[in-house]
Amino acid sequence: MMGQFVLRRRGAPLAPLIVAVVVFAFVSLLAASSPVEAVQLDRPPAAEALTYNLNLAWVLLMSFLVMLMQLGFALLETGFTRAKNAVNTMAMNLVVYPVGLIGFWLTGYGFMMGGIHQWASLGAFGLAHRELGVRFGHHAFGLIGFSKFGLIAVNNDPGSLAMFLFATVFMGVAATIPTGAMAERWKFSAFLLYGFFMSMFLYPLYANWVWGGGWLSQLGVNFGLGHGHVDFAGSSVVNMTGGLTGLAGAMVLGPRIGKFRRDGAIGLMAGHNLPLAMAGTLILAFGWFGLNTGSTLAASDPRIGLIAVNTVLASAAGSLTAILYLQQRYHRPDVAMACHGLLGGLVAITASSAFVSPAAAVLIGIIAGFLVVASVLGLERRLRVDDPAGAIPVHGVCGLWGALAVGIFADGSYGDGWNGVAGPVRGLIKGDVGQFIAQVIGISTNAIVVLGLAMAFFVVVERTIGNRVPAEVEWSGLDALEMGSEAYPNV
Amino acid sequence: MMGQFVLRRRGAPLAPLIVAVVVFAFVSLLAASSPVEAVQLDRPPAAEALTYNLNLAWVLLMSFLVMLMQLGFALLETGFTRAKNAVNTMAMNLVVYPVGLIGFWLTGYGFMMGGIHQWASLGAFGLAHRELGVRFGHHAFGLIGFSKFGLIAVNNDPGSLAMFLFATVFMGVAATIPTGAMAERWKFSAFLLYGFFMSMFLYPLYANWVWGGGWLSQLGVNFGLGHGHVDFAGSSVVNMTGGLTGLAGAMVLGPRIGKFRRDGAIGLMAGHNLPLAMAGTLILAFGWFGLNTGSTLAASDPRIGLIAVNTVLASAAGSLTAILYLQQRYHRPDVAMACHGLLGGLVAITASSAFVSPAAAVLIGIIAGFLVVASVLGLERRLRVDDPAGAIPVHGVCGLWGALAVGIFADGSYGDGWNGVAGPVRGLIKGDVGQFIAQVIGISTNAIVVLGLAMAFFVVVERTIGNRVPAEVEWSGLDALEMGSEAYPNV
Amino acid sequence: MMGQFVLRRRGAPLAPLIVAVVVFAFVSLLAASSPVEAVQLDRPPAAEALTYNLNLAWVLLMSFLVMLMQLGFALLETGFTRAKNAVNTMAMNLVVYPVGLIGFWLTGYGFMMGGIHQWASLGAFGLAHRELGVRFGHHAFGLIGFSKFGLIAVNNDPGSLAMFLFATVFMGVAATIPTGAMAERWKFSAFLLYGFFMSMFLYPLYANWVWGGGWLSQLGVNFGLGHGHVDFAGSSVVNMTGGLTGLAGAMVLGPRIGKFRRDGAIGLMAGHNLPLAMAGTLILAFGWFGLNTGSTLAASDPRIGLIAVNTVLASAAGSLTAILYLQQRYHRPDVAMACHGLLGGLVAITASSAFVSPAAAVLIGIIAGFLVVASVLGLERRLRVDDPAGAIPVHGVCGLWGALAVGIFADGSYGDGWNGVAGPVRGLIKGDVGQFIAQVIGISTNAIVVLGLAMAFFVVVERTIGNRVPAEVEWSGLDALEMGSEAYPNV
Repeated sequence: MMGQFVLRRRGAPLAPLIVAVVVFAFVSLLAASSPVEAVQLDRPPAAEALTYNLNLAWVLLMSFLVMLMQLGFALLETGFTRAKNAVNTMAMNLVVYPVGLIGFWLTGYGFMMGGIHQWASLGAFGLAHRELGVRFGHHAFGLIGFSKFGLIAVNNDPGSLAMFLFATVFMGVAATIPTGAMAERWKFSAFLLYGFFMSMFLYPLYANWVWGGGWLSQLGVNFGLGHGHVDFAGSSVVNMTGGLTGLAGAMVLGPRIGKFRRDGAIGLMAGHNLPLAMAGTLILAFGWFGLNTGSTLAASDPRIGLIAVNTVLASAAGSLTAILYLQQRYHRPDVAMACHGLLGGLVAITASSAFVSPAAAVLIGIIAGFLVVASVLGLERRLRVDDPAGAIPVHGVCGLWGALAVGIFADGSYGDGWNGVAGPVRGLIKGDVGQFIAQVIGISTNAIVVLGLAMAFFVVVERTIGNRVPAEVEWSGLDALEMGSEAYPNV
Repeated sequence: MMGQFVLRRRGAPLAPLIVAVVVFAFVSLLAASSPVEAVQLDRPPAAEALTYNLNLAWVLLMSFLVMLMQLGFALLETGFTRAKNAVNTMAMNLVVYPVGLIGFWLTGYGFMMGGIHQWASLGAFGLAHRELGVRFGHHAFGLIGFSKFGLIAVNNDPGSLAMFLFATVFMGVAATIPTGAMAERWKFSAFLLYGFFMSMFLYPLYANWVWGGGWLSQLGVNFGLGHGHVDFAGSSVVNMTGGLTGLAGAMVLGPRIGKFRRDGAIGLMAGHNLPLAMAGTLILAFGWFGLNTGSTLAASDPRIGLIAVNTVLASAAGSLTAILYLQQRYHRPDVAMACHGLLGGLVAITASSAFVSPAAAVLIGIIAGFLVVASVLGLERRLRVDDPAGAIPVHGVCGLWGALAVGIFADGSYGDGWNGVAGPVRGLIKGDVGQFIAQVIGISTNAIVVLGLAMAFFVVVERTIGNRVPAEVEWSGLDALEMGSEAYPNV
Repeated sequence: MMGQFVLRRRGAPLAPLIVAVVVFAFVSLLAASSPVEAVQLDRPPAAEALTYNLNLAWVLLMSFLVMLMQLGFALLETGFTRAKNAVNTMAMNLVVYPVGLIGFWLTGYGFMMGGIHQWASLGAFGLAHRELGVRFGHHAFGLIGFSKFGLIAVNNDPGSLAMFLFATVFMGVAATIPTGAMAERWKFSAFLLYGFFMSMFLYPLYANWVWGGGWLSQLGVNFGLGHGHVDFAGSSVVNMTGGLTGLAGAMVLGPRIGKFRRDGAIGLMAGHNLPLAMAGTLILAFGWFGLNTGSTLAASDPRIGLIAVNTVLASAAGSLTAILYLQQRYHRPDVAMACHGLLGGLVAITASSAFVSPAAAVLIGIIAGFLVVASVLGLERRLRVDDPAGAIPVHGVCGLWGALAVGIFADGSYGDGWNGVAGPVRGLIKGDVGQFIAQVIGISTNAIVVLGLAMAFFVVVERTIGNRVPAEVEWSGLDALEMGSEAYPNV
């Protein structure tokens, strides 16, 4: 009892900090949201070639950073699972990369970006993004791309090749998220099948609708709903897709043996290496710079400064909120939640990182921090879904929140011409209800189509080769009986 | 027991009061701040615009690399501590990042860089550095900056935003150094308070004096002492500040139980995962490229070639010296010392990396290698200070040496106009005694002010909420009783 | 007493090295501080200067990525070895970096690149590569460079300095490969000697022949054999050299005790941390972007887009081939082979990444996947060579295959002027038999000269200080008796 009291008192002085930060963020949000002209740099023809070079290099560099996120996810998920499944968890995160690459090369990129024909002719690479929907979308109300399979037609276009790499590593992130939710019980052959399904079809489909000139990107042009569904760097396209696919998989798989007991108790099932999970978190935070600042497709767009700052501030706010909230409520600094909060902040700022002020980024991160804590607890206790690595709360829930946040906080300082709509992107705080509706439509579509197709896929697999390892394999560990290699055989 | 209770009661009302004052100060600050003109770029000729783009991208990229140093420190320190404290050590390195970010955003950056008003108008971003002191320092003899709090005034200036990120990750490095010296016995709530103190006030203060146009940077202009205190990338500003803060903390905390025995013997207390510490060392060496080559603030400054080469050569010389010296003296290749030596070489070259030749870099690294070995041994044996991760020798001692080395080895080939003084930076080997004196003043100031303020802070905390966990928590491990999560529960 | 004596003798040969390095550093410091003409750029029009800046930054950035490969190798090899040798394996990978840096700085770079005098005057940095052989090779039929030792003559040339860094980290990769093949039984003092031999002489020799304007690069100009031996980023120069040096070392060392039993059985000797090895693999895949896309020496060369895509596709194809092949044959997903296959694909595409289409990259990767599996098994079962980390199959065999693949798949779309030969590089599929012969000559030379010199070196060491630790050290583990530090003392 005394110990409890001591801990409670220790937590107390930190409590007002969240309040202070929220107040400050709100006040500075108001100060910051006055209309500002976007800085326009004039560029005579002589400098255009160099701008192209700079931007090509930028897209590649940012792709490299995003690629390292495979390592971040691998460490995070492996740390949060048990030693007897460490090789299996690590292997899924490693193998999804080559599987996804080949699948995306074969059909995925064609489905996603096949409606856009002229990356090559874009002298200033970075200008492309915002004009895709109208100028290059080859469907008035597009459902899927259909060209560039195997990169054959664009072998000699550096812009298309860099775009392929950038799109590939984004897909890799989406594809590796479900391995966290479905860890410790997934049959490896079923996982391999999933890898091809995700990279060849499911991810490209929704990505086409938002980033490939598809119908969600044209909600603005066709129906006057703001700039259509706007997702700067993947809150919905990458994270929500990954999170909801993981949700579908975890529901079809069912919980790990021993997670939910008959008497209603929930098994703890702590991961075997928390420092590994923390290392993974920091690597993800590093790679996230690629995700967000790379999504200008242009180092020549000075907006990268704001994007990078928003990214770190939201992650900090998410992490700090989760720590202090739990310190307040449970009287101990929950380190796993600090990681989830940090990642939740990153996921949430992803869609809006170019469109909001730093103060708004802090607010978005704070809300993400609360959402992560609430949804980690709610998922287990209410929905009784077993998600060993917290993939569904972090990527699914915060991804949804992030896509919504564009429709609320976009402050009208960026995005002129985005998806073919003149004028900057504005959210509710600037009075554009249409943009908010476009965000809701994009999120709902993801929740219906991605979740539905993923569920359908897992059910079909369940009825054919099966998704789940036998109970005796799960008891002994997937490493011994499924993978044939133990993680730490020799210690 | 009673004493504990009294201390708690004294601590409780104090903390919300501080928060309330801080919030009040900010809100009134905002009310008082005049409407800010959006900073306009002068629409410079094409080449200048592109140079700006290139340098903005460079500063961001280098910031990303420095951010990864948080992971390097986390692994290094966790490897050098015991398994029962692995989560705690790792958590301090991870949590200091969000804490520091929010603190630095709220006040730190404003105190550090608030005296410099016009990053945005600098067409060639990289030219700024050397001209800060005179052209943009808003105080004839500056003690602290006072603007840009919460980034409100500079929301739309990419240069300021990139500079904020770059400054933030440097602060993050300084703030995470003491966690190594104070590991395995520091109360987590006291650590959180420290995180805010360091990021909001202590680091920004000294950083303002050297990099924010403050008085140490103006010793040249005002007193003819060379170019004022010159620290290219943070030997004194980042490393010595971190190392001496760690020294203050380790002294106030006292040694770990069992480290120094009554009979004078010194307990070994080996870390639990030496490969982890080595991995951290290599990641730090990677991130250090950001620290040093980023500090030109310009990829358009070809000096980055020399800086990168000096960086690796000094690290190699430091590491090799430590290995061979110990191999000679103790007849075994001491791997921990190889790491310390490598990092000591990096710390030492940081201040002078742009001002010296590769050969001088090797010399500076060799001396750092000897210094690290001597000070690791001396700290334990003579001063009887317990520093589990070697943070004080590596960052404090080699940081001091590095700042001094500028005053010795600067060869007059770079730095024209630095801190507003014409002509290149020259050390003793080129006959500039004034520069050497400026370096000594800067180091002495750090040793007096930073060490003094840090000591004062830790003493105040000691007398209120206390810095140290109870002995039973230390015996059982901080993970079990302080953090509530064990690092490897399941192996 | 005897043990002490032995240890002392082991330390002795390394002692004078500190002295030598100090003396050399001092001498070159003096030489460097005499007034040296700063190399003058021709102050070209603004766009050219910016191109130079962009490319200089690119070469440095890519060097940073390659440097991180030291960590990748360290984790990979440590994961594949036993816990009792973890510190030793890790330490070799860490220490080879400072040793190699100092050795390469002293003589290696001079031998490798000393025949090329004018990096500095190349306004467009990136153009240099292809024209080296003819315009800047200072020998009609060059065998070795001989200038720039200690960087003295090029202190003020950013191009040379960046080139030094880039060349150094490549050398570091080559030098760290043999530590995987020779792990768990190599005496540390013999390893240190090897580090200097490799960095100061062996690597630079062959590298000079291919990249320093030496005779293999001039097979085209002098004998009409295509463009001479073409190795874009190091399949032969870096990987085959490292792999064959490892082969020589592993043969001289002999297998670990217990690997090959009298009855013909092969001991399993599983590594102690498979997740660590997988993490190392992903870090290597990240660093490999530096190796390949950096080898244009120019971000202004849009070919970097294709190079990056080929790199990832080949790695994916190699990994997937290895997984699926073993799944088919042994009915389990062999994770170690997935890593070997991924790395084998990377090694194989390295030489040709700029010269082939994505589809050819996939083919090259697939063949590498089969080669890795076959050679891992064959090396153990037929040659009875013990290679704990698979360094010889991955780097030696796939390196050979990669260099050969240029002569087969180069499709005539790139390389005009390479090594002074007009027209693009073409392989057998485009009818250029001469190019194929040049590749065969380069490979054969590597197999004869590098393998021969490495073998000679190891034999000489064997007859003097010895290469191998005593059997009792091997039984107890090198960490306890050779390094004096255990990896996990406290768990």
